[in-house]
Parts: sequence; structure tokens; C-alpha cells
Amino acid sequence: METTQTTQILTHQGALKLLTAAVAKAEEIGQPQCIVIVDASGEVLAEIRMTGAKFLSRKSALAKALTASSIGSATVNIPEEVRTLIGLATGGNVTGLPGGMPIVVDGTVLGGIGVGSGSGQQDIEVARAALAAIGAET
Amino acid sequence: METTQTTQILTHQGALKLLTAAVAKAEEIGQPQCIVIVDASGEVLAEIRMTGAKFLSRKSALAKALTASSIGSATVNIPEEVRTLIGLATGGNVTGLPGGMPIVVDGTVLGGIGVGSGSGQQDIEVARAALAAIGAET
Amino acid sequence: METTQTTQILTHQGALKLLTAAVAKAEEIGQPQCIVIVDASGEVLAEIRMTGAKFLSRKSALAKALTASSIGSATVNIPEEVRTLIGLATGGNVTGLPGGMPIVVDGTVLGGIGVGSGSGQQDIEVARAALAAIGAET
Amino acid sequence: METTQTTQILTHQGALKLLTAAVAKAEEIGQPQCIVIVDASGEVLAEIRMTGAKFLSRKSALAKALTASSIGSATVNIPEEVRTLIGLATGGNVTGLPGGMPIVVDGTVLGGIGVGSGSGQQDIEVARAALAAIGAET
Repeated sequence: METTQTTQILTHQGALKLLTAAVAKAEEIGQPQCIVIVDASGEVLAEIRMTGAKFLSRKSALAKALTASSIGSATVNIPEEVRTLIGLATGGNVTGLPGGMPIVVDGTVLGGIGVGSGSGQQDIEVARAALAAIGAET
Repeated sequence: METTQTTQILTHQGALKLLTAAVAKAEEIGQPQCIVIVDASGEVLAEIRMTGAKFLSRKSALAKALTASSIGSATVNIPEEVRTLIGLATGGNVTGLPGGMPIVVDGTVLGGIGVGSGSGQQDIEVARAALAAIGAET
Repeated sequence: METTQTTQILTHQGALKLLTAAVAKAEEIGQPQCIVIVDASGEVLAEIRMTGAKFLSRKSALAKALTASSIGSATVNIPEEVRTLIGLATGGNVTGLPGGMPIVVDGTVLGGIGVGSGSGQQDIEVARAALAAIGAET
Repeated sequence: METTQTTQILTHQGALKLLTAAVAKAEEIGQPQCIVIVDASGEVLAEIRMTGAKFLSRKSALAKALTASSIGSATVNIPEEVRTLIGLATGGNVTGLPGGMPIVVDGTVLGGIGVGSGSGQQDIEVARAALAAIGAET
């Protein structure tokens, strides 16, 4: 194995597009949301808390974004029977709550987006709308 | 004193305009920045870390936004001789580093914006451009 | 009881051998892992996060290493019925997740190794390969 | 600006080479060290605490690695007059202590290495020996 590898990162313009599209979808369905975007190492790239959203959903949206970026898959794919134990062992960072999706472009995991404050279905819908806006896998 | 008072809050559309204008100014001057916006209670409303910005500047930009929102004034107005002591007593949340400005509209402090990763002068310039974009005091 | 006792500690060369053997096994089975080694007081001695491993598995691997070192036994020996309560009471440090093994040489617990990012079986396999490389109990 | 950018990352084999070379140099000069390697977002890639090293130097070595990765330059380049304020505003993550160096290969900042437990000059010497071992800028 070489010392370095080539990869792709998400730019801030990509992150802004994700935020903007997520907000637009949340407004369309009438559900204020907290939206957090992290990079492939889990460092926050962007976030917004919409007017009327639950402020503690910032924390769960962060956990959703971290989980999705870490596993490269939607949060709902964390098996139900291990959710409590893995959540405990990771300080709450790994969650099986719906609304976390990896940001995958051309097969590369660029990070994760986490959405929280609505129902699980609404959170997923907003995340998917954001991903579609940058041509990422949904 | 009455039990309740009327106040003004910054909406997420206001926060998005601040972010977008800050990013545009940072791109114009060629200095990637971390930008954090908090409300009048110090809770994060929005943030972005631009491509190439120092990732630890997220933390100092948050401290700048918190300080400016808390005191309703620019961070540079924290007197030099007390900066270390107040910083220690607040877990680093109060800072005198340049780049934190209150978000004041019609005389009401709506929150604070913190900008970090450039020189002090660049950080202030980006914060002012953001404030101007929503008609806030600069 | 005397005031002092003789004991054994794991050296950094021992820790490096553990890391290197764990990485070799993980590469052999094609599963990138996070590997953490702690001493008999729970202080980190060494760690590595392999390319492609889940970054949040650093946290669970640390919990596994801590648990194994603390109890002097594999993490899977934490009884299932108390895992949630003990996890809560220790801030997530005690975990029953598979992949944590004590480092025992000549009957002395020198610390613990925690492996995470694969399946439970893969995590255990990598931990055992590491232990075998320094002649520790497996 | 496009949604994504191409970049390089440090592999775990690269991180292992850094650790191994750092340990070899520290043994050669007879000064046990704590060595921490982080990626370009500040997430830990690898670390080791040598036998006889000061265990609290793990924390300062981490801060050194984070600082160097964040600013893309040696920690000693943080201007002396702002070290206390920036350290406070970043929860201690930004430090001007000697022994933090960016990991730069072909002009790309792949992360940072932080070394602590010796004198400032020894810490820098060990960091440089590690960087040289992977052909990074020293």
C-alpha cells in the first residue's frame, strides 16, 4: 500500500447547495428542520437550524450525519439489536435514528447529512432532496 | 415589569443570507473562512467551513459569535487586560479575538456572527459584509 | 500487605507489535479496522485507524480496550442483561460489544486491545492475531 | 466552484511508517515521546505513547498535531502574542508549543504530526525524522 491515496472532498459550495435544497424541501413540506453536514472524517462542514425546529435536534442531526459518514450508509441500516450498545460505546455518536444519509458521489463517500426535527419519514425526505440537488446517490 | 416582552429573532432565511454573503466576500478576497452564527441565547443557528479554511477556526469562530451575541458588541471591545481571565472563567467562550460582531437590527441584538481563519482584518471584513447583506448594523 | 508490588507493563515495542500484527490480519481478511491499545490503568498506549475503517469505530474500539483491561477478560463476558446499565453508569466506557480482549502475559493483565469496524467475529479475529504476535493469551 | 475537489489522503501504512520512524529516532536520542498523527480534518489516524514518556504529553502532542494540520504549518509559527487567546478560544487545540509539523506531500497537507515529552528541540527532531521517512516536507 502506498503512503497516500487519491480521493474526493465536498467543497463549501457543495455544502451550501445541500443546505439550501434541504431548507427548500423542509419549507415545502412545512416542517422546520435541523440539518448538519459533516465530511468523511466527521468534521462539521455546514449546518442550519430552521425557525421553529426543535433545538435539541441539532444534536441528533449531528449524530445522524456522523453515523452515515462513518458507515457510508443510511443510519437506518444500523441493526436494531445493537443500537443501544453501539450508541453507548460511541458517546451517542452512532445512531439508528432515521434521517442520516451518506453523501456519495461517483462511488466516493464525501461525508454525511443528518436531518432532525420532523418525523423519520420527513427527515429522510429532506435529506434525499438535498442529496439530489448535488447529484449524489439518494 | 410585565411577565413577557416582545422581541425579534433571526430567521433561518436571515441566517442563510448571512452565510451566503460571508462566503461571497471571503471568495472575493481569496481567504477561506469558518463562519458561525448564533442566536441571542448562544445556540448555533448556522455555520459553514469553507474549503481550505483552518478547521480549528470553527472553534474560535464559535467563541467569537458567542462573545459578540452575549455582550451585544464586537469581540475586540473585550478589554485587553481581562481577556485571559474572562476566557478562562467562561471555558474559552469569551474571546477578544477580532472577527466577532453582534447581529443588531433596529436596535435589537438578534445574535452574533463569528468569522475565523484569516487575519483579524479579513475576519472583520467578512463579518461586516454579511451583516450589510441583511441590513444589520456594521 | 507490603507497600509496593512488582508488576509487568507493556512496552511501546510490544504495543507496536500488536498494532502491526493487527493491521496485517485486517489486511489479510480485507476488513479495515480501528485498533486501540490501553495499559492496565486505561491510558491509551497506541492506536491506528486503517484506511476505509469507520471513524466512529475509534470510539467503540477504545471502549472495548478499556473494558477488557478493566475486567481482565473479553468484552463479551459482560453479561447481556447488565450491559445497558453498566454502559450508562460508566459513560459508555464499559461495553459488551465483541472485539475487546485483555492483554495477558504470564498471568498478568498488561492492558486491553479493542478492535472495531468489522463484524464482531472479524474484530475478535484481529484482536487474537495481535495477541498471538506477542505471545499473549488468546 | 465545483461540488467536489480531488485531494490526497494519508494511508494507514503511511501513518505506521511515521510512527515507526518517530519511535526509532526517539530511541536513538534516548528521549521517550508521545506521538500523535491526525488527518486533514483533525481526526486521529495513529498514536503511540513510548515507555517512560510523560502521559500528559499525549494531550499536548494531540494539540500540536491538530494545530499543524489545521494551519498547514509548524506550530511554532503561531505568533507568540496571540497564543494564549487562540488557545483559550479553541479549547486548547491551537498551540504554539514546538513539536507540531504538517504532513505535506507533493504540496498537499495530509494532516499533522505532534510530538511531545522531550525538549522542544527533541520534539521537532523526532517529527522531522518521521516526515523524512515518508518523503514528506521537513
